[in-house]
Order: sequence, then structure tokens, then C-alpha cells
Amino acid sequence: MGPMASWSDFVLERPDGLTMQGKGFLGQRLGLTGIEVSLNAMAPGQSMPFSHAHKQNEELYLFLSGSGEMLLDKDIIKVGPGSAVRIKPAVMRCWRNTGDVPLTCVVVQSKAGSLEQATLTDGILPPDPPHWP
Amino acid sequence: MGPMASWSDFVLERPDGLTMQGKGFLGQRLGLTGIEVSLNAMAPGQSMPFSHAHKQNEELYLFLSGSGEMLLDKDIIKVGPGSAVRIKPAVMRCWRNTGDVPLTCVVVQSKAGSLEQATLTDGILPPDPPHWP
Repeated sequence: MGPMASWSDFVLERPDGLTMQGKGFLGQRLGLTGIEVSLNAMAPGQSMPFSHAHKQNEELYLFLSGSGEMLLDKDIIKVGPGSAVRIKPAVMRCWRNTGDVPLTCVVVQSKAGSLEQATLTDGILPPDPPHWP
Repeated sequence: MGPMASWSDFVLERPDGLTMQGKGFLGQRLGLTGIEVSLNAMAPGQSMPFSHAHKQNEELYLFLSGSGEMLLDKDIIKVGPGSAVRIKPAVMRCWRNTGDVPLTCVVVQSKAGSLEQATLTDGILPPDPPHWP
């Protein structure tokens, strides 16, 4: 997908006619079956033009650089590099760039409650160490 | 979680006794219910000490900085900033840092096949624009 500095170049053309600069989805490109992911670089002074909630999907926002704010129902939180925000489906959310550099974040959608096990309980470890050819 | 440059400071102490530098999980901290996520910064010259596969979870590796390689069963691929790699549960995977700066990546686990709808089909849009207090 290119380095973070190039994410501002993404142009999303949605089937509903909306065009957005600085947003690229991974799901279809990679054939993801458990999540949808977008890589985002919002320009200074910009805001998402709408709030939205979800029917069944939980979202994780992982901010990587820049500074901004999220509107979660009626609450505002500040976000910056390393901010990780979990949002339940029904919460109305919006975000904006309040700084002077792009606000970059990774957004992951998953079906709330769908993870049954992970890491130690889902991992399979072979007896042998990795063999790098 | 702090900016990417600080991810090398994470120390993971797993219940099975393994201690890893440069790896931090988000799931328990945030109460995630659809995914498990780790933030990773692997030091130069380091490799994951083991390959692993999964029982039911698909993984996404999103590399953000540095340069390295992934071993996927018997194939090696090069990875760098912006590399996004989806891995089916049964594939044995390992990765290593082949550069001279930390290799940072975000790893997302989700139950394969669990996403039923996303974005346009899962989103709820209110009639009014966002109201920033």
C-alpha cells in the first residue's frame, strides 16, 4: 500500500458516489474474510463530513501520526500517535484533524463478539524452529 | 500506546513464560471482542524464534517501517513500509528484520469468515451532519 507518507494520495470512489481523498480499503484487495481495514491520512483542517454508527461491527481506530479529535456520541476525545480507540457498534463517531500535518490512522471493522480464541489458545506451534531456505 | 518510535519498549510477558521485547497486545486493554491486535517493533537482526499457524484465525500483517522478510510455509517474501499481508489460518508463518532499523508492524487476528458485512452495508448514517460541541 506504500509508506504512510503516501496514504494521502489514496482516492476512494465509493459506489454511492462519494469520493474521498486519503482513504484506502484493504478488504477486497487482500480477500480478507474476518475484517475490513482502511488506511487513512486526513489533511489538516479536514473532518469526516458525516458521523456514522454500525449495525453489528466493532471498530478499532489506531492513530499513527498527527493530532486530532474524535466525536463519540456527544463526547470529544483528543487523539495522537499511538491512540487506540475501540468503538461499540451503536456509538455515533466522527473525527477531524486539528493539527498541521496529516492525521493518519488504521481503522479495523470486525463483527462484535466474533473472536472466539486468539494467540495462545488459537495458535499452533510446530516442534521445529523455522527453517529459512 | 505511544508513538511507533516507542513500540520497541513494549515488554510482553506471556503466561507460558515467554518474554518478548517490542510486542504489545491491545485486546485486553481495550476490551476488543472481534479481533486481537498486536503492535510490534522488532530490533535489527532479530527473528521470531518460532513459526506458528492458527486453528481458526486469519491474520493481517501491516508493516509500517523498516525492512524484513516473511516465511510463509516454504516461501519467502520481502516486506517494507505499507506491505499488507493476509495469511490463512493453516499457513506456517515467521518473520525477521533484515534491515538496520526496527521493523514495525500491526498484526490483526480475526476469526476467518466471520465478517458478514462492512462499511456501506453495515454503516448507519444519521440525517444530520456531525455536531461538534
